[in-house]
Amino acid sequence: MSIFLHVVPVSEAIATVQKIAPLPVQETIPLEKATGRVLSADIHADVDIPGFDRSVVDGFAVHAADTTGASDAIPAMLHTKGRVEMGHPAGTGIHPGECIYIPTGGVLPAGADAIVMVENTEQAGGDVLVRKTVAHGENVLLYNEDFSKGAVVLCRGRRLSAQDIGVLAAAGCARVPVFCVPVIGIISTGNELVPVTDTPKAGQIRDSNSFMAGAFVQEHGCLPKHYGIMKDDREVLRAALERALGECDAVLISGGSSKDDRDMAAALIAELGEVIIHGIAIAPGKPTIIGRADKKPVIGLPGHPASAFIVLIAVVRHLLDRMTGDAAPEQKVVQAVLANNVPSQKGREDYVRVKLENGMATPVFGKSGLLNTLVKSDGVIRIPAESEGLESGERVGVWLW
Amino acid sequence: MSIFLHVVPVSEAIATVQKIAPLPVQETIPLEKATGRVLSADIHADVDIPGFDRSVVDGFAVHAADTTGASDAIPAMLHTKGRVEMGHPAGTGIHPGECIYIPTGGVLPAGADAIVMVENTEQAGGDVLVRKTVAHGENVLLYNEDFSKGAVVLCRGRRLSAQDIGVLAAAGCARVPVFCVPVIGIISTGNELVPVTDTPKAGQIRDSNSFMAGAFVQEHGCLPKHYGIMKDDREVLRAALERALGECDAVLISGGSSKDDRDMAAALIAELGEVIIHGIAIAPGKPTIIGRADKKPVIGLPGHPASAFIVLIAVVRHLLDRMTGDAAPEQKVVQAVLANNVPSQKGREDYVRVKLENGMATPVFGKSGLLNTLVKSDGVIRIPAESEGLESGERVGVWLW
Repeated sequence: MSIFLHVVPVSEAIATVQKIAPLPVQETIPLEKATGRVLSADIHADVDIPGFDRSVVDGFAVHAADTTGASDAIPAMLHTKGRVEMGHPAGTGIHPGECIYIPTGGVLPAGADAIVMVENTEQAGGDVLVRKTVAHGENVLLYNEDFSKGAVVLCRGRRLSAQDIGVLAAAGCARVPVFCVPVIGIISTGNELVPVTDTPKAGQIRDSNSFMAGAFVQEHGCLPKHYGIMKDDREVLRAALERALGECDAVLISGGSSKDDRDMAAALIAELGEVIIHGIAIAPGKPTIIGRADKKPVIGLPGHPASAFIVLIAVVRHLLDRMTGDAAPEQKVVQAVLANNVPSQKGREDYVRVKLENGMATPVFGKSGLLNTLVKSDGVIRIPAESEGLESGERVGVWLW
Repeated sequence: MSIFLHVVPVSEAIATVQKIAPLPVQETIPLEKATGRVLSADIHADVDIPGFDRSVVDGFAVHAADTTGASDAIPAMLHTKGRVEMGHPAGTGIHPGECIYIPTGGVLPAGADAIVMVENTEQAGGDVLVRKTVAHGENVLLYNEDFSKGAVVLCRGRRLSAQDIGVLAAAGCARVPVFCVPVIGIISTGNELVPVTDTPKAGQIRDSNSFMAGAFVQEHGCLPKHYGIMKDDREVLRAALERALGECDAVLISGGSSKDDRDMAAALIAELGEVIIHGIAIAPGKPTIIGRADKKPVIGLPGHPASAFIVLIAVVRHLLDRMTGDAAPEQKVVQAVLANNVPSQKGREDYVRVKLENGMATPVFGKSGLLNTLVKSDGVIRIPAESEGLESGERVGVWLW
């Protein structure tokens, strides 16, 4: 293979991984387990919510007209008819001149059209003095005001937040249709790599990228499956890749920072399927491989930790988002002012790690082989391919880690 | 009990929950399980990272001085001495006038002080033509440049991201000291509440708040434990609370929107321990209870869904953050321009739900009994107690859900 890569723009890499992402399959799970999962179908309310006109305060249900002009100085006097019991249909209705005690959440009795808060009343024997005028409908949550029976409460593709889980409970969705969690195989290659439990000897380093990739995959709603460290041996790597393709929905091959490792990964992917892209116009992260085998995406990540991480956030996350079925994946971006000039090479997207402090984004420069720049920075700024750099004082969007 | 609550400022409520939060206990778990968990101790590198001078490119290790003035027009010619094998100590060293092939990640051989990228060289028999000048140290990652042996790589209290997991792997931290996941008991009260699996009859609604609270607790790194729906019966509620106090680290009592329920919860907490706060100057969310029993926090949430949710994000999250040991809990805030005037009552903090679109924050007004406003909005803006409102066009910080 050539020492020069044929690089493609980041946008093409993203479009490619989105195109080859396998469609997620579906399952049904209990509501208590659904936090953070992605809906695989629109959910409809099975009842009207609420199913009755409901008080939103503790107070007295009244004819609003009976309170017209009522004030501290001139209260309206209404005859009280007892109380509404929680959880039961309203019993007695009221006639003009009457009122009935109603707790928050109680059913509005027939004849009543508003509630006076208890703070604005005073009990006087069998009568109640109302010290405030209320309007028609005041302090009442109307029948089906929240959701109508049959209405879509949440849409397919929504990643479920705490509020969403509350809405699903109200809508009667005790078992939730969701997309299955994709399983992502992770293979490490490189003769220089040793397990975390080993102490590296001269020339060796610990395999940290596969752990980073596994955690990233998990943060993006997928399940990592680790296959361990493969030596730079074609048969060994091929056996691992075939096994991972059989057990997972996609495979990440965490290089191998040397060209030999990368070439072997590319050759193997080509042998078992196809290499679609080898080289992206991104810095750091150029020597990335995007391929497919057994109809499953196979991504070769660059070996330098910072390069691998930038490729994960800039490209691989789009693959994972598509595979999880998330229709509106979150990208945390905050606005900041750039503290220094940042030059950039035209024709490639540059991702510059930055530290955020008091609204200022300060570049954290450092070789892409370093891990420490990743944990000392808060996110990255992206310099588009058509730009030659950004100037100190410019407003920039910072993608938070 | 009085119908009027003695309300305290939000800041006092936060300080109180932080004070009564039990200290988290610790455990040690495998690195693969540590994503999203919180470190309970500083982690030190057990080795120098890297442990040797390392090439960051594929190329030729050289004496930088030998390349001075080298260019396409006048290349330097160096005698090649073979190659560095990955994962092994460097064998042969080089003398001036010599070079050696080195893959990315290889050990810099004795005598070499820089690497020329392979793209800038040309093989010519046993010699290599170098077409570019390199500086001393160029393309070399130095011994312990990433982390020195013994250096703190990550601090206690850090919630572990993907990059952090990578750093821990490099630092040899195969088993990670973390704070245990706090267990939060959730009890629902209210005669009007029925389970999600039931169809509500007249006067009834489904219990959605306890599901919402459970999911919220999970989103904030805790484990919810649900005790189900308790009828408005003191002995039943007391038995549930005692059981939850025995099994959990803190308990949320999801009201009961009626005053009867709230009063019963407050009376029970007082009986088993103490009610510290009953009423917060927050809207929505005023009728919140903060108490303690068996040295464990017990929080009574208001019954209206939007009120309960605002109390969760404005107050309870500070309790959970403290209990998880998270030293720098994340609060996603984005800047936006307010689309409408929003009046507010002086003396209380108002939390107004907003929809975010193209940098504009549009208030989503709606009764606090509604769930739909929570899923139709993207977050809230906070109007401080000392303010009487915000004006259209003002810049505001939006707390994203």
